[in-house]
Amino acid sequence: MKIRVVTPIVTKDFVTPEAAEEYAAAVGLEHEVSVVAIDRGPASIESEYDEALAAPDVIAKICEAEKDGVDAVVINCFGDPGMKPGREAVAIPVVGSGEASMHLAAGLGHKFSVVTVLENVLPMLYNECKLYGLEGKTASVRSVDIPVLDLHVLDQEKLAKALVSESIKAIEEDGAHVIVLGCTGMTGLSEAVREGLAEQGYDIPVVDPLIAALKTARILVEMDLTHSKRTFPYPPEKEIVGYDIPRPLPVG
Amino acid sequence: MKIRVVTPIVTKDFVTPEAAEEYAAAVGLEHEVSVVAIDRGPASIESEYDEALAAPDVIAKICEAEKDGVDAVVINCFGDPGMKPGREAVAIPVVGSGEASMHLAAGLGHKFSVVTVLENVLPMLYNECKLYGLEGKTASVRSVDIPVLDLHVLDQEKLAKALVSESIKAIEEDGAHVIVLGCTGMTGLSEAVREGLAEQGYDIPVVDPLIAALKTARILVEMDLTHSKRTFPYPPEKEIVGYDIPRPLPVG
Amino acid sequence: MKIRVVTPIVTKDFVTPEAAEEYAAAVGLEHEVSVVAIDRGPASIESEYDEALAAPDVIAKICEAEKDGVDAVVINCFGDPGMKPGREAVAIPVVGSGEASMHLAAGLGHKFSVVTVLENVLPMLYNECKLYGLEGKTASVRSVDIPVLDLHVLDQEKLAKALVSESIKAIEEDGAHVIVLGCTGMTGLSEAVREGLAEQGYDIPVVDPLIAALKTARILVEMDLTHSKRTFPYPPEKEIVGYDIPRPLPVG
Amino acid sequence: MKIRVVTPIVTKDFVTPEAAEEYAAAVGLEHEVSVVAIDRGPASIESEYDEALAAPDVIAKICEAEKDGVDAVVINCFGDPGMKPGREAVAIPVVGSGEASMHLAAGLGHKFSVVTVLENVLPMLYNECKLYGLEGKTASVRSVDIPVLDLHVLDQEKLAKALVSESIKAIEEDGAHVIVLGCTGMTGLSEAVREGLAEQGYDIPVVDPLIAALKTARILVEMDLTHSKRTFPYPPEKEIVGYDIPRPLPVG
Amino acid sequence: MKIRVVTPIVTKDFVTPEAAEEYAAAVGLEHEVSVVAIDRGPASIESEYDEALAAPDVIAKICEAEKDGVDAVVINCFGDPGMKPGREAVAIPVVGSGEASMHLAAGLGHKFSVVTVLENVLPMLYNECKLYGLEGKTASVRSVDIPVLDLHVLDQEKLAKALVSESIKAIEEDGAHVIVLGCTGMTGLSEAVREGLAEQGYDIPVVDPLIAALKTARILVEMDLTHSKRTFPYPPEKEIVGYDIPRPLPVG
Amino acid sequence: MKIRVVTPIVTKDFVTPEAAEEYAAAVGLEHEVSVVAIDRGPASIESEYDEALAAPDVIAKICEAEKDGVDAVVINCFGDPGMKPGREAVAIPVVGSGEASMHLAAGLGHKFSVVTVLENVLPMLYNECKLYGLEGKTASVRSVDIPVLDLHVLDQEKLAKALVSESIKAIEEDGAHVIVLGCTGMTGLSEAVREGLAEQGYDIPVVDPLIAALKTARILVEMDLTHSKRTFPYPPEKEIVGYDIPRPLPVG
Repeated sequence: MKIRVVTPIVTKDFVTPEAAEEYAAAVGLEHEVSVVAIDRGPASIESEYDEALAAPDVIAKICEAEKDGVDAVVINCFGDPGMKPGREAVAIPVVGSGEASMHLAAGLGHKFSVVTVLENVLPMLYNECKLYGLEGKTASVRSVDIPVLDLHVLDQEKLAKALVSESIKAIEEDGAHVIVLGCTGMTGLSEAVREGLAEQGYDIPVVDPLIAALKTARILVEMDLTHSKRTFPYPPEKEIVGYDIPRPLPVG
Repeated sequence: MKIRVVTPIVTKDFVTPEAAEEYAAAVGLEHEVSVVAIDRGPASIESEYDEALAAPDVIAKICEAEKDGVDAVVINCFGDPGMKPGREAVAIPVVGSGEASMHLAAGLGHKFSVVTVLENVLPMLYNECKLYGLEGKTASVRSVDIPVLDLHVLDQEKLAKALVSESIKAIEEDGAHVIVLGCTGMTGLSEAVREGLAEQGYDIPVVDPLIAALKTARILVEMDLTHSKRTFPYPPEKEIVGYDIPRPLPVG
Repeated sequence: MKIRVVTPIVTKDFVTPEAAEEYAAAVGLEHEVSVVAIDRGPASIESEYDEALAAPDVIAKICEAEKDGVDAVVINCFGDPGMKPGREAVAIPVVGSGEASMHLAAGLGHKFSVVTVLENVLPMLYNECKLYGLEGKTASVRSVDIPVLDLHVLDQEKLAKALVSESIKAIEEDGAHVIVLGCTGMTGLSEAVREGLAEQGYDIPVVDPLIAALKTARILVEMDLTHSKRTFPYPPEKEIVGYDIPRPLPVG
Repeated sequence: MKIRVVTPIVTKDFVTPEAAEEYAAAVGLEHEVSVVAIDRGPASIESEYDEALAAPDVIAKICEAEKDGVDAVVINCFGDPGMKPGREAVAIPVVGSGEASMHLAAGLGHKFSVVTVLENVLPMLYNECKLYGLEGKTASVRSVDIPVLDLHVLDQEKLAKALVSESIKAIEEDGAHVIVLGCTGMTGLSEAVREGLAEQGYDIPVVDPLIAALKTARILVEMDLTHSKRTFPYPPEKEIVGYDIPRPLPVG
Repeated sequence: MKIRVVTPIVTKDFVTPEAAEEYAAAVGLEHEVSVVAIDRGPASIESEYDEALAAPDVIAKICEAEKDGVDAVVINCFGDPGMKPGREAVAIPVVGSGEASMHLAAGLGHKFSVVTVLENVLPMLYNECKLYGLEGKTASVRSVDIPVLDLHVLDQEKLAKALVSESIKAIEEDGAHVIVLGCTGMTGLSEAVREGLAEQGYDIPVVDPLIAALKTARILVEMDLTHSKRTFPYPPEKEIVGYDIPRPLPVG
Repeated sequence: MKIRVVTPIVTKDFVTPEAAEEYAAAVGLEHEVSVVAIDRGPASIESEYDEALAAPDVIAKICEAEKDGVDAVVINCFGDPGMKPGREAVAIPVVGSGEASMHLAAGLGHKFSVVTVLENVLPMLYNECKLYGLEGKTASVRSVDIPVLDLHVLDQEKLAKALVSESIKAIEEDGAHVIVLGCTGMTGLSEAVREGLAEQGYDIPVVDPLIAALKTARILVEMDLTHSKRTFPYPPEKEIVGYDIPRPLPVG
């Protein structure tokens, strides 16, 4: 089984062999997880604007992945840019980190809160919850007010503290019973946040969205499941100017 | 007052001086409505895929419109591609044909149905209803199974008949009390559909989405209203590769 | 095009030639907007009780307007008393200030809050949001605790300040991204409230309900649209005691 | 304990000593149930228009009842005209037949359907379900297409058959598990409808709305409960023209 | 008419002749209300766990009640353990204190809050609100943090004070207009809580759940109504190990 | 990693070494999946009644599993009997087949339908959808009208045909885009149903609930996640009569 992680930003820092092996380890697929960034689009995703500029090349990378014989694609961003159009273009599963992690979280307790980067993206993420049918399971979406690209520069302990502090507000003020980290730039921090919460008396699961997506992708491939072509039919063939995405090849 | 109509497809047939004057007439703004198509993207919008490829240049055209001193932008497509990111990028109102027409329709009766082109776009339009908060006012979304670019080639009387026939199903089977034409390629047909329905005993309003959007845009400019910067803040500044959209200039 | 503004209270202070011209100016219909108060009912609308006593004469005034050849009626009260029965009685559009302004506001941002006069009317206005299908777009309904008839007596600057202060609570505590003034007695204050909010750092649209209703009425007439007779059929003919409202004359 | 039944129509046929004793028997309150019709308003309730014209005198009758020392008022109409303003005006419980019967029905099974008189009132009754918070328990609202005043003229067996036939459609097509008769003009028919359904294999409860309201009124008085003054505060005192309803006397 | 109150705990303190007569007095059925505790299960209900262990013997007691010729069963616990399976097993009405009281409360004002014993049961009670279709009428569920079995040991005045204090939070912070006592161990306290609230200026109804359930049971028997066999069909016959509940005897 | 599958019925046919190895193969955990049936309860689950009688021993088996050092428990029934109380009693994940499969299905397309055994369980499964927050993603619940214990006796080809036929109704009449098999007795049939649908032109994913639950359990253990103790706190300690479930041992 091969999984391709598409990072929907032009910043290449996160598409290293080390990252690939870290993800592979998470799903027990040594050497079989490949990582790729997009070539055109924004440096990070922090708005509808960024998502819109990321989406076309995300679709291209998804099509490329299918041509490369990859079994599933994971989108390395909580906002799931390009996920729905990407699903239309291919027959393999395309798993978004936001959707996969929130469905997993929904099964873990009464309501979950998402703790994300900037206030900017709050309406966007509330819309995601609504579109995925999870509005009734969402306690709140909150932000720590740290830009995406600062996440890795910052002292990781301080970052975890900021996440713990905002999570406690989600628990106390909004009724959260589960925390979802709302940016895949926070990968690797779920354990520290969970411990930080436990230290302050909150025995609460904390979900890492990229890992949730990788594992969901593996499950789908193992179960021979893919997204419904009734929801995501192949796009009708037509002239496209300015993008040379390989035409999807409908199976059968 | 100047309004710019952005047609989010590369097909140039609909961006003629005649079209501009027709739209201008609709809002009583002689010579003050300009029309523009996008330069890269799909020939028509019939999928999430098409919308994703249209969005970047729609944003560029919206930014250009603001720089040109235009007072409001209307997106000439029921799917509202690029509307939300476009609103982030500018300070002028950006009105989507889907959103404007469905809110107008919601005020006209108990529930409305959207009658659109292809079955492909049904999940996409149901998602639009949900995102705009109008799920509870939506009776159904239905299609006549005619591709967008055939709408103008087809005999208009036959087209109206197909729309009437599908509208009657919406009324009888789904409980629709109002019909919204679900594609701006159907502009000009609302009267024929209303008459066709009336002939068969259905006294039902039929909303033309592009006209609804043009008129909503005019209202917003007249009332000095624009979209909330709390929902659509300027996108954080960052490196963008492959798109040269002029940086928005936050006011103040 | 002629529009009739029906003020559903017996207080005649607001049905002056000046008011008529002010409204006419708002919709660009010089001399073509007429204003009328009701002859029986309450002095102001601040409860379900007041609305119930206003409704019969509102209906009569709506029927009278249609007989006078008016093209659309606007109800000059956020509570929309008599709107639904009025629509049943005539074939012309009957636009409520509450419904029109909330649908306009819904399109301007993530969620809106209504800031109204007295706590008394909160459940009534929450019910309006629900009935219009806008519950999911409503952040909250709040009041400044000032009776309707004091609105004009009060220093307008102080009034604006009270509205700004309550709007900030709506933004900070309830997540409002758009403000709707919840009483047509506040007509003319939207600009001052918007500026007051902007001064405190909140770049938020503020909707004036009566102006929104007037403009929606004009749109409907221009688009030759009226309310669905499927939702608002003519009332069955029968004996009526104590009200001499002219029998509606079903068209056709 | 004294209960007053207010029939919100000017037709006096239903306010007889026999009717009073029949209702009294239903709640075990011999001689203590009084009945009254309104003096101005419509001959029957079959539209929003009829409800609006009924409401003012319903309120007057409710105030009168409280002055007469009555313990609770029941509104003898499924549409509950005047119920909410009436509750504002008094301190005693005011029970609507629609609200009481639908909450009782909601506790009897998965979803209920309302079977009412004319198609005219369908949107009105769907709105009632929504306002009472029972949208999620409502399978459908259906009509037998018989005007209210014909209910008593018609052969009761034929009427029951029409109700059974429409109820079966509600069960088979809409998923109803409970039937609510949607007009208090159908009082006395619930048993026949239940038997008619049972004969055709449907073991389904059928709720009589007026009886449900009478019994709910008795419960409230027995439990010393009345409607919340937080939801239904006394209407602010003000000039009222054309209605001489005795000013409510706030307790305390 | 005979009513059986099933107390779903093994603690026998509440199943005394005095309790039976108190309940009988509440429904005007001298000597005709019997009380019974379960023989296996927990000492009190404060978790899903407790409910699950109570349910089998509750079902047995319900079946026994039907065999004894009882007309209706009331479950003496706000969590309604065993209510739905019990309804499947018999043809007589089985009324839960939670469901009956919340539907009664829903008719008394805009939104209600439940004030219960321990924080433990909050998710469970929120789920109840959702299942009964009353989510939209629920302002909140709150707890006083007192275990069930301490309710009777505690000074009743102090207990009432704790309930008043938590109810005020529900009113001020969550928008409650009606209070429902969320544990049948609080039976008899509604009047004290209502008075306590009134003393602090809150004119709010307070619903006692067990009394509401007893009265609802009486209503159902009087109206010859029982729960829908379409929702609660007899359970298919099959081998059962470890429980000797008498096989239900489907009528007809 | 060790997983325990608890089959909540006393029928022992499904707790064989072969079944254990089949499940182990599904999650790649050779020899590490153990299977157990309950000792008291019903022979199959086809009603609320059956679920209630199954739950106590399911809880006991879950506690036993934790004492045995198992890492996660899977409940082998779509109705998830005992899942919530079981989660309270232990610290390890307890995964229900219904909840896990419906969240997985929700991510695969616009709406899913559940196709289950008997009409009896429809209200129960609709309640499950509602409780898991998935009402908005549920197209319908349908049944093939075959008792659980007949599933294995029947010709598997015929059974698949019945499932395909009911699935097509779900797709055509209810708008299903994904099918969930609504009984773990259908394990192994998803592929045949998917192929049967594909043969008739429906390219639709079909989810096997037990496999989905097993894989979700593995994910949770791998991610060191368990259910929120904020939602599922340990049950308060108290006297329990008639069940000797080992007291849970709160960690820390």
